[in-house]
Amino acid sequence: MNRLLQDLRIVEISAFVAAPLGGMTMAQMGADVIRIDPIGGGIDHFRWPVTRDGASLYWAGLNKAKRSLALALDKPEGRDIARAVITAPGAGGGIVLTNLAPARGLDFATLKAARNDLIMLRLTGNRDGSAAVDYTVNAASGFPLVTGHGGMPVNHVLPAWDIAAGLYLAAGLLAAERHRSRTGQGQEVVAALSDVMLATVGNLGYIADVQINGSARPAIGNDLYGSFGRDFATADGRRVMIIALTRRQWRAIGGATGLGERLAMIGPMMDVDLDTEAGRYEARDAIAALLARWCASHTFDEIRQAFAGTGVLWGHFQDFRQLVRDDPRCSTENPLFASIDQPGIGRYLMPGLPLDFSADPRQPPCPAPLLGEHTDIVLTEVLGLSSAELGRLHDERIVAGPDRR
Amino acid sequence: MNRLLQDLRIVEISAFVAAPLGGMTMAQMGADVIRIDPIGGGIDHFRWPVTRDGASLYWAGLNKAKRSLALALDKPEGRDIARAVITAPGAGGGIVLTNLAPARGLDFATLKAARNDLIMLRLTGNRDGSAAVDYTVNAASGFPLVTGHGGMPVNHVLPAWDIAAGLYLAAGLLAAERHRSRTGQGQEVVAALSDVMLATVGNLGYIADVQINGSARPAIGNDLYGSFGRDFATADGRRVMIIALTRRQWRAIGGATGLGERLAMIGPMMDVDLDTEAGRYEARDAIAALLARWCASHTFDEIRQAFAGTGVLWGHFQDFRQLVRDDPRCSTENPLFASIDQPGIGRYLMPGLPLDFSADPRQPPCPAPLLGEHTDIVLTEVLGLSSAELGRLHDERIVAGPDRR
Repeated sequence: MNRLLQDLRIVEISAFVAAPLGGMTMAQMGADVIRIDPIGGGIDHFRWPVTRDGASLYWAGLNKAKRSLALALDKPEGRDIARAVITAPGAGGGIVLTNLAPARGLDFATLKAARNDLIMLRLTGNRDGSAAVDYTVNAASGFPLVTGHGGMPVNHVLPAWDIAAGLYLAAGLLAAERHRSRTGQGQEVVAALSDVMLATVGNLGYIADVQINGSARPAIGNDLYGSFGRDFATADGRRVMIIALTRRQWRAIGGATGLGERLAMIGPMMDVDLDTEAGRYEARDAIAALLARWCASHTFDEIRQAFAGTGVLWGHFQDFRQLVRDDPRCSTENPLFASIDQPGIGRYLMPGLPLDFSADPRQPPCPAPLLGEHTDIVLTEVLGLSSAELGRLHDERIVAGPDRR
Repeated sequence: MNRLLQDLRIVEISAFVAAPLGGMTMAQMGADVIRIDPIGGGIDHFRWPVTRDGASLYWAGLNKAKRSLALALDKPEGRDIARAVITAPGAGGGIVLTNLAPARGLDFATLKAARNDLIMLRLTGNRDGSAAVDYTVNAASGFPLVTGHGGMPVNHVLPAWDIAAGLYLAAGLLAAERHRSRTGQGQEVVAALSDVMLATVGNLGYIADVQINGSARPAIGNDLYGSFGRDFATADGRRVMIIALTRRQWRAIGGATGLGERLAMIGPMMDVDLDTEAGRYEARDAIAALLARWCASHTFDEIRQAFAGTGVLWGHFQDFRQLVRDDPRCSTENPLFASIDQPGIGRYLMPGLPLDFSADPRQPPCPAPLLGEHTDIVLTEVLGLSSAELGRLHDERIVAGPDRR
């Protein structure tokens, strides 16, 4: 959290990962991000992981630092309120971020009619508007068939396309707002999740590989493509990843393990130059044969000591429990984190934004709102509704406040 | 490509994926992004995939639309030129983006002494400055141990942490520049790749899952966690992913396959409510038993026809070759792409930015520069060097132009 964007008001109508992450990134830089949900919660309100009571840890994680407005979006008056909040005056307002099909009256043209400098950021599945989600886009990307050892596709678990899309939306929002602040002109900015995938496959060279080389990279397990990197078992049953992207990292492995002379024998043996990435990749099985034996005869602690301060690029595999319980980076020793009470769930280690701005020092992370927690205050502040008007809207179930269990 | 940010000049001193992607995202929105590399190329200049001639398709993919300046960064005069370019006057200048350890005289304090409103975006490995790359950060994240069927870690192939970090840098750059345009104040913005991972693990609820529930999600192959989704083989040996996140998607599967009545029997049989995500997850093996038999008795084309227009959320697995050759989204039918000649490599399908800005329509993608292609023009434009001065710098190998083979 910081306050860099504190003059911006962004309305988010969203679900799942991408748009919520984009909005949260803005909120974590200080923008007033108002997430509008249907009364009772959107389609992501109970997404796993959940607590034993069914409260979504996922929803809480992706909606931190926002305000929540619960409206009957299935009723005209609910949508009128949403439109009024989105298009309310103010230099930093008039910005909406969505990855849902627009409800009637909340499309770009109607919103722009109400506020001419409107900025709408809209994520679709495919460019033609057809549905696509991280799981379907990933299947089409080519990556599952080169993950693991090949043959059968292996899906990623990290929703990487959604995450990239959400962060593209954040950058696009700031670029569009910059343009508006200079020209007065709003606009619609549209991204398709499948285009995020396609652009990325191209950016990494895999489209050109097919078209220029007529080839495609193979599935090579946990090996690093085009240089040396592989995972190894330690004497005590842990696994480590050892990598040499640069010549210095390669030399460091020989020094730290004492295998320098033996590793050097691989060059003439395989007829490759091990000081090049291509040479190390070509000789990876021979390199791994030596390193596997060395790792298998050393415990994890011995390996850690052997590599400390040597310039070897390495890491160890850990599961979520080990990450949370054993890794000092995942603790309040790291200023990224604070132990925060999430209403409705409890106290846990909450990350802030992974950017440190020297001009606006880090504030503690803010928890996610309860659904509808800010309904009354937002409608009062932004629309100037009276308490009598709010009372009627609650009575008629056009709006809802938090359902505190 | 568009011209939204055409008044910005950003100097990038980078390698690999993260900072290059951040800079390219700015360049694709019109900023003048000048990548400075050592003469002969940086440590990523030959990263795979490469052509048969050894030209990097990866480098070309991640440095599109930038200008290239090749300098002897190992010599004081080369670093002096880099500092002069970074800190040259102009309202949109004075911005540097890096993921490398700063060379002497190119650290934030020295640069700020030369231009007081300097903005530096800096990506480190770990927060303490120690080395970490996508491969080591991923190993620590917990994700490899829940990818695939468990037991052994499975690394992702998409460098997802680098991609997220690069896009965070792009958003952070725009936020910092917005702040400077309002206050005159520059700043250093620092992100650690490991913090990008840690924040994401937290954002998705996996830290809270350990701390609140004392549990962690298991490895479940290609199944979707917390609802229904799985991959199935078709009669003709393809694989499809079928998903039901929402009730509507769930009902659509029954309708499109004709299995509605049989699927409905699973609710009482398993004692779950299949209209809930948790119910479908609990009953996923029973659901999959019916769908597997159905898919195995239908060809891919039959399945495509059966699902068309029904609201079933599905996709098919394809490899990089199939993506490039068969998927109409990966063609010039999609305005994301154009067929562009990449100097030194050839013509292929090049993606632009996956954001469509209505206020500044899409221009064709720009290829990556040749290394040093813009050395002379940048030093003339930005520093006002004469041709005599340029001649001396070339003669003394302080700067280099493109090495056209």
